[in-house]
Amino acid sequence: MNSIDFWFSIGSTYTYLTVMRLPSVEASSGVPFVWRPFNVRTIMVEQNNIPFAKKPVKLAYMWRDIERRAAKYGLPVAVPAPYPLANLALANQVALLGMREGWGREYVIETYRLWFQAGHPAGSEPTLSDSLRRIGQEPARVLDLAGSPKIEQALEAETAAARDRGVFGAPTFDVDGEVFWGDDRLEDAISWRRHGRVT
Amino acid sequence: MNSIDFWFSIGSTYTYLTVMRLPSVEASSGVPFVWRPFNVRTIMVEQNNIPFAKKPVKLAYMWRDIERRAAKYGLPVAVPAPYPLANLALANQVALLGMREGWGREYVIETYRLWFQAGHPAGSEPTLSDSLRRIGQEPARVLDLAGSPKIEQALEAETAAARDRGVFGAPTFDVDGEVFWGDDRLEDAISWRRHGRVT
Repeated sequence: MNSIDFWFSIGSTYTYLTVMRLPSVEASSGVPFVWRPFNVRTIMVEQNNIPFAKKPVKLAYMWRDIERRAAKYGLPVAVPAPYPLANLALANQVALLGMREGWGREYVIETYRLWFQAGHPAGSEPTLSDSLRRIGQEPARVLDLAGSPKIEQALEAETAAARDRGVFGAPTFDVDGEVFWGDDRLEDAISWRRHGRVT
Repeated sequence: MNSIDFWFSIGSTYTYLTVMRLPSVEASSGVPFVWRPFNVRTIMVEQNNIPFAKKPVKLAYMWRDIERRAAKYGLPVAVPAPYPLANLALANQVALLGMREGWGREYVIETYRLWFQAGHPAGSEPTLSDSLRRIGQEPARVLDLAGSPKIEQALEAETAAARDRGVFGAPTFDVDGEVFWGDDRLEDAISWRRHGRVT
């Protein structure tokens, strides 16, 4: 079956739910997902879309909602997790490099596990290096490459590609240009891939 | 079984999906819902929460998402519907009066049908009077009462009650203070009522 583009940013909170359950969803559905990190903050700032800053009631709801849905999926979660992240871009540059080198999914899953289960903010030291060591990658080598202009520009190019597809938030599931936003639309996206409609 | 408070505002777009399917959901689930109109705009302005103004990409997505989900539920829909509404407060004052007098649900359903299926904006004439006549209510009598200080203040009191419960948007399902926001959380709210968790 054709794949679905999974647009995500380390930094997005609801993406925790998707990242942790996607491997089993992929296996059970038979639908392959292409994991595509981008910089959601760039797009949200451009679009004047700041969902939780200065919105304490909505922010408190978000954590409660994530907690309930994590329980639904059988995922441990410690909320509120550190938020927002200070180093969103670097965290996603590492993810992009990892996708190219073949260890990207492991890194993203380990990063979210440390962030949402152990309270260590993604993208900052010592957590960033720790997450790399835990998946068998040498931090000095990875961080040197991930911080290079080449990877920095590659993330910006992916961000532009996401924008061109109509992506405005994360996680987003892109089924040949049919866009589904939010972890709670994952099943709709799979339905669209299979049947061309939401069932 | 104890009831769930259904907090809604005529003016909220996703509330179309809830209003049209709630009667059958109530019947099939056995869970009664108390329909409580409030002024969501008051709360959203207070909380700096303007989800779609100046956000054309997100707004376009909203209509597409509503269209897909309406199809999922077997509901006809003509999108985009007129938005935002000019007379949100009056539309909901009529709803509140109707809930007290026993014809509130019929009015809300007919209002959303005219708004989302026929393109007639809720709360404005001639649609407002038309919707009342269609459910057998005399417009002059109803509008005189609904526009009175008593009902105006009653809607403000309900808005304050919603705020006190942590409601920040519509539709919201309030299960003894456990708040679920969005039509796509209706099933979660029913699960919470039944089992005390999201299943």
